[in-house]
Amino acid sequence: MTNDSLVIGGRTFTSRLLVGTGKFSSNKAMIEAMEGSGCEIVTVALRRVDIENPEDSMLSHIDRDRYLLLPNTSGARDAEEAMRLARLARAAGCEPWVKLEVTPDPYYLLPDPIETLKAARILVKEGFTVLPYINADPVLAKHLQEAGTATVMPLGAPIGTNRGLRTRDQIRIIIEQAIVPVVVDAGLGAPSHAAEAMEMGADAVLVNTALAVSPNPGAMGAAFKKGVQAGREAFLAGLGEQSQKAQASSPLTGFLHD
Amino acid sequence: MTNDSLVIGGRTFTSRLLVGTGKFSSNKAMIEAMEGSGCEIVTVALRRVDIENPEDSMLSHIDRDRYLLLPNTSGARDAEEAMRLARLARAAGCEPWVKLEVTPDPYYLLPDPIETLKAARILVKEGFTVLPYINADPVLAKHLQEAGTATVMPLGAPIGTNRGLRTRDQIRIIIEQAIVPVVVDAGLGAPSHAAEAMEMGADAVLVNTALAVSPNPGAMGAAFKKGVQAGREAFLAGLGEQSQKAQASSPLTGFLHD
Amino acid sequence: MTNDSLVIGGRTFTSRLLVGTGKFSSNKAMIEAMEGSGCEIVTVALRRVDIENPEDSMLSHIDRDRYLLLPNTSGARDAEEAMRLARLARAAGCEPWVKLEVTPDPYYLLPDPIETLKAARILVKEGFTVLPYINADPVLAKHLQEAGTATVMPLGAPIGTNRGLRTRDQIRIIIEQAIVPVVVDAGLGAPSHAAEAMEMGADAVLVNTALAVSPNPGAMGAAFKKGVQAGREAFLAGLGEQSQKAQASSPLTGFLHD
Amino acid sequence: MTNDSLVIGGRTFTSRLLVGTGKFSSNKAMIEAMEGSGCEIVTVALRRVDIENPEDSMLSHIDRDRYLLLPNTSGARDAEEAMRLARLARAAGCEPWVKLEVTPDPYYLLPDPIETLKAARILVKEGFTVLPYINADPVLAKHLQEAGTATVMPLGAPIGTNRGLRTRDQIRIIIEQAIVPVVVDAGLGAPSHAAEAMEMGADAVLVNTALAVSPNPGAMGAAFKKGVQAGREAFLAGLGEQSQKAQASSPLTGFLHD
Repeated sequence: MTNDSLVIGGRTFTSRLLVGTGKFSSNKAMIEAMEGSGCEIVTVALRRVDIENPEDSMLSHIDRDRYLLLPNTSGARDAEEAMRLARLARAAGCEPWVKLEVTPDPYYLLPDPIETLKAARILVKEGFTVLPYINADPVLAKHLQEAGTATVMPLGAPIGTNRGLRTRDQIRIIIEQAIVPVVVDAGLGAPSHAAEAMEMGADAVLVNTALAVSPNPGAMGAAFKKGVQAGREAFLAGLGEQSQKAQASSPLTGFLHD
Repeated sequence: MTNDSLVIGGRTFTSRLLVGTGKFSSNKAMIEAMEGSGCEIVTVALRRVDIENPEDSMLSHIDRDRYLLLPNTSGARDAEEAMRLARLARAAGCEPWVKLEVTPDPYYLLPDPIETLKAARILVKEGFTVLPYINADPVLAKHLQEAGTATVMPLGAPIGTNRGLRTRDQIRIIIEQAIVPVVVDAGLGAPSHAAEAMEMGADAVLVNTALAVSPNPGAMGAAFKKGVQAGREAFLAGLGEQSQKAQASSPLTGFLHD
Repeated sequence: MTNDSLVIGGRTFTSRLLVGTGKFSSNKAMIEAMEGSGCEIVTVALRRVDIENPEDSMLSHIDRDRYLLLPNTSGARDAEEAMRLARLARAAGCEPWVKLEVTPDPYYLLPDPIETLKAARILVKEGFTVLPYINADPVLAKHLQEAGTATVMPLGAPIGTNRGLRTRDQIRIIIEQAIVPVVVDAGLGAPSHAAEAMEMGADAVLVNTALAVSPNPGAMGAAFKKGVQAGREAFLAGLGEQSQKAQASSPLTGFLHD
Repeated sequence: MTNDSLVIGGRTFTSRLLVGTGKFSSNKAMIEAMEGSGCEIVTVALRRVDIENPEDSMLSHIDRDRYLLLPNTSGARDAEEAMRLARLARAAGCEPWVKLEVTPDPYYLLPDPIETLKAARILVKEGFTVLPYINADPVLAKHLQEAGTATVMPLGAPIGTNRGLRTRDQIRIIIEQAIVPVVVDAGLGAPSHAAEAMEMGADAVLVNTALAVSPNPGAMGAAFKKGVQAGREAFLAGLGEQSQKAQASSPLTGFLHD
């Protein structure tokens, strides 16, 4: 699978698995998951770190030569809050990349299509590389791409539910129509979920909860890494169609019944 | 994942992916799939090979030092036919292992529970290591295990359909109650299907059609290999439960809204 | 839907909803469910009633002119036990109809294919009208039909789980190949489950737990009655295929964009 | 189920099944479907009718004393087009009700969240009773309700696909959070799909393609009517939870094994 690289915002990545840093029981567990996963992009909640403080306990554990730090606006309830967080991060010296999350609903943490598009349009104009977290809405995905976002990141299921690709029909359409990488985000609770997303043609996936809550985050990271690769390689090799009737793998050549 | 080995009939295997040899467009494609998959067990339809002929074009391509040849009784329509095939293979010098398939129905190639159990009981007594292909029927699986089979091999979906784990509820019960390895067989059309079976706790899977019909059997074999490993490793690391409510990966610590 | 009748064992029924009598909180609740459902066949566990006692509290509540009492062998763990129960019922004056249940496993109450077929063959020869409860196994279903059973009754999901048609792929094949009525039994927890079975072409369904555990068994019985009718009528009227692409219900005639 | 009425925009309805009028092979077929369905609200594409012409062949077939005519903006690609259609209808004497559809994508006819909300806000202010067709997006649904729409109408699957509730997880959240009636629209291809939506607590459903393409639209309308009622009644009666383990419907009272 040489030369099968993922390009986001002009940068080239080998890994198609992005990792979130929330909910880990310790920084050690977080680092183990990152290393196991082989990820190159890690997303960090701006609310949770002190960007300006080089001693911040969490950030100091992440090797910035190895991982691209992708700040996210988790916790922002509208476009204004999200933009304020993104700008603060840039002012503090972060690169102008932002995973845009606008989630007014505290129960399911579902993204707001209106405020997300509003913030995306402005942040793109301000020079940010914007990766928006969205509901699996193909028309919204189009609007965002027309606004210049670097990816679209539709959810498979609400954050932290481990339910897999509950929105697969809509994600299939988003992939079919996409002109930027599609990164499936949220709800992927097992390697098979990640593999399925990749088999459908997603360009990458983001996983967090499944790693963070595992008794063995490093091993789970490695398992997801293989799941993502398995799905990608199968997509490239060409998967067969589903059928109703059985097809004998060992065709009846007949001598037995002669 | 050192020391996570699969033991069937007293033999130890590292790979948890078994490969079938039907339907490939060429022996070359078949060998590529086998090599890509990392499999150690390959199943061969007794009807399709001339066991006594060392020049048999298909068998001569399979390195018997590397792969355990598991003869199957594909095409047998009742216990008698299946037993006859198994005995012929042993008489010709094969090891007394048999993948027992009794499929009277030519459309869906579904296995016959009655004839399969009947043949299994006799073949076990005759000293065969018996791996029976069955519908996902937990009670039948118990009978077979009590009869001394080395595995049970429930189907995920009819052979060749690529439909995945359509029988997952029943397979879950079979796994929960099993005292021998459970090998999910038939219907697995994508690495995500194989991964899911392993995540549920299956001990191994058998894949054939998905490799044989792929434009790139070697790459697809490698993809399935990773899918199986991903699922196994996730199972061992401990997967989380599914939930309905979202769980914030980035808990609301609140400073933003202060 | 005039003249769309269900014929089982030479008898003609109008209703396609059979009702089980277990688990109700009271005989009153049971009767309400039966009346609401419009059923004509009710199944009763032989273990639970005193067939020879006309004062048996449960049986005395069921109007035998209105409902055909179908004794079941619930609790039988092998063919012998099931046959003994069936014969006792006939000796006590019941009609020679039996819902054959052989469930050795106490956790999931799944049926035993071997013992069920064995008992069915004998009971049919003894003149019983046999309705066997089975796993969704098309080959077993064929054997039973060849043995002369009056129906086959594949399960949708384990008894009492309310999980719906988890075995739908196998049930579809059973229906396609059946020469006697297919009655989907067990696991149907909502009218939509019953409707789906009927839309697939099942001839009838049997429901028990969903009625028995409802706070309002009479209303739930009525809801299932409509669900069964809805599914049956849609099946007869001819359902459309599923497609991936949207089909405009309001074709673009164009004036708006002229 | 007396007094279980549906109130939309201050009006009270008995039926919870709305019917669309597109795609029928003839006006006769359309009327049969309407009559069979028992619907009280029918939606008509403004592009397809000549509102000002009392002789319009389609409209002249619909009894306006019996059915509330709900004009829809099908074919509108943005808010402007949708609003123009709505205003034309009102100017021509229609009541100020509008099913708001803004579907820029011609392949899947998926709704535009941004333009739909924009048009909804303005039309509500202009005095329209607005029923917006939307993707199954809970946050968008909230915005629309805050803007004063009379319902929200999330899609189950793309229009005309007959795929059922592919978005069920999101619809469940919309229902849980709704303060106006939730009408599931699009993709419902069988009565079981409609029943499932109602069992989940939807207030109503809209069906069109499944009736229009049926060989027997009148019978299919009647089947959907029962499916909707079945689901609603089961929802009101209280459905049980799904479980993994079997629950014996006929508890083991033990005498058999004594």
